[in-house]
Amino acid sequence: MQIQDLGEQLLNGDRRSLARAITLVESQRADHRTQADALLEHVSQVGRQAFRIGLSGAPGVGKSTFIEAFGMILIGQGLRVAVLAVDPSSARSGGSILGDKTRMNRLGRAPQAFIRPSPSQTHLGGVARRTREAVSLCEAAGFDVVLIETVGVGQSETVVTEMSDLFLLLLAPAGGDELQGVKRGIMEIADIVLVNKADGDLKSAATCTQADYASALRLFRKRAQDPADFPKAMAVSAMEDTGLAEAWKEMQTLIAWRRKNGHWAARRAAQARHWFEEELRHALLARLAEPRMQTRITELGGQVAKGQHSPTAAAAALLRDLDAGKAVQRS
Amino acid sequence: MQIQDLGEQLLNGDRRSLARAITLVESQRADHRTQADALLEHVSQVGRQAFRIGLSGAPGVGKSTFIEAFGMILIGQGLRVAVLAVDPSSARSGGSILGDKTRMNRLGRAPQAFIRPSPSQTHLGGVARRTREAVSLCEAAGFDVVLIETVGVGQSETVVTEMSDLFLLLLAPAGGDELQGVKRGIMEIADIVLVNKADGDLKSAATCTQADYASALRLFRKRAQDPADFPKAMAVSAMEDTGLAEAWKEMQTLIAWRRKNGHWAARRAAQARHWFEEELRHALLARLAEPRMQTRITELGGQVAKGQHSPTAAAAALLRDLDAGKAVQRS
Repeated sequence: MQIQDLGEQLLNGDRRSLARAITLVESQRADHRTQADALLEHVSQVGRQAFRIGLSGAPGVGKSTFIEAFGMILIGQGLRVAVLAVDPSSARSGGSILGDKTRMNRLGRAPQAFIRPSPSQTHLGGVARRTREAVSLCEAAGFDVVLIETVGVGQSETVVTEMSDLFLLLLAPAGGDELQGVKRGIMEIADIVLVNKADGDLKSAATCTQADYASALRLFRKRAQDPADFPKAMAVSAMEDTGLAEAWKEMQTLIAWRRKNGHWAARRAAQARHWFEEELRHALLARLAEPRMQTRITELGGQVAKGQHSPTAAAAALLRDLDAGKAVQRS
Repeated sequence: MQIQDLGEQLLNGDRRSLARAITLVESQRADHRTQADALLEHVSQVGRQAFRIGLSGAPGVGKSTFIEAFGMILIGQGLRVAVLAVDPSSARSGGSILGDKTRMNRLGRAPQAFIRPSPSQTHLGGVARRTREAVSLCEAAGFDVVLIETVGVGQSETVVTEMSDLFLLLLAPAGGDELQGVKRGIMEIADIVLVNKADGDLKSAATCTQADYASALRLFRKRAQDPADFPKAMAVSAMEDTGLAEAWKEMQTLIAWRRKNGHWAARRAAQARHWFEEELRHALLARLAEPRMQTRITELGGQVAKGQHSPTAAAAALLRDLDAGKAVQRS
């Protein structure tokens, strides 16, 4: 299929074309990359914007159950929902946190939903760049809400924040002393902390945990761009479907506020700049991965290892080779 | 002074020239960098090699007292000792962990010693590259032992390991349950764990802590390149000067073994390659910092923020500008 046609069908909201487009941006082949760039440039002109929600939660907090129940609420309100994942570990495990769609039975079957597992790449940077592009494709395909989930492993939350409008942290009920288990950095980026499993035997524990986090969040500096009662902590039950509609209402309140005060647009603009600079650094460093350069790096690296050159002098020599190569390509 | 002269005096072991040479490599000025590169290339030809010891310890474990006492033992054995620091936080605090030489009174006054605080740069990467060069200068100046200290803040230990032959972790006595306070990654790179303050009231606590760490170290995988009883934990008192000579003996045993079995040379070669690749990445990315490029980045970044280009397309356009600029420079 022509890229032009794929783009048109994608803009018509066709889910199969969306899936194919994402496969294209995830490909490592150079010709696919050229096509992907053309596609992205084409659809970015349309300017559709979804509500991008980042979601983090450690294994066991009920993330799949939450996404399923929350997604069904959104669909019930007539919205189309896409779910993407940023999971740097997927390359290692061979699987992916969203690989098993059967864990999201109802949502997986709904025509208003689109679920996509994490691309399998070794580096978080690569996963992040491709997921950021997948988010753009979902927006272009007319999805109203894009949920970007990640598992709580340090850097990945920061990366997800750089592509979302709002960040949710999902937790399980726990003793107050387990508060410290959540990294300070993650608490700082969370807009809403949701304590899941507020049902059955765990209901009172969930309420306690929610209160603990509400206190903890008050200790963080108030953010100038948010209403006074944010960030906030809420108790929900994804299993019993309680608190989810209220949580969605809070998310809408927060985003409406940010939109009204210009913070939403400023954040999107800053994110776009961030990804531009990331792409720039990546593309520049990719030049060192060219076979001709790799040969020279091995050669010069060996001489440096033998003490024949200082690392700095060898680096300068290699960059001269790189420039000479570019000059030859251009002439 | 001519760089040639500075180099000669440095090779003669002149401490003032060494200090000037380090100031030169730490400078951010482009002309200084050119001189520094020439100096490093010149002295690297001599091929002198010191015993490079990395040392990490959190504030309060008695690092300065240890360096002072340990350094005096080395001097007592007729060795010349240089002390350098890698402290990424020094840029923020304005000071440096080794800034106060008065904390190392005797060592600071000894003509066989050279003490240099951490260069003040914002990024750990910059501090590391300059300290790595300072180590080379100390070697060229004929120092027998170069101690590279850092404070326990995550990444900096890894960076120090990349420029040392052996890594010491200095700890204070503590309850066994505090074992977890030391990050697993740091335990994995430590060759010898020294529990300091094994004196007075803390003596028995230090012995307990030493035993705890000895057990913990046995849980880590044995390293093929080391004698069977390494890594090891020892109790020392920098204040009462006990255990230090024994610790030095153990360090010599370990290094002699590694030298004999070729591991020492392999590690140095791998480190040289590592720094070559670091310099390469840094030098390539530095091209984006040129004023002409910064102007274009701001310009294109603004267009990306407005949605006029995708981040990827804008990055490609900027790299074309960069190449065109290089072509003009070359023609």
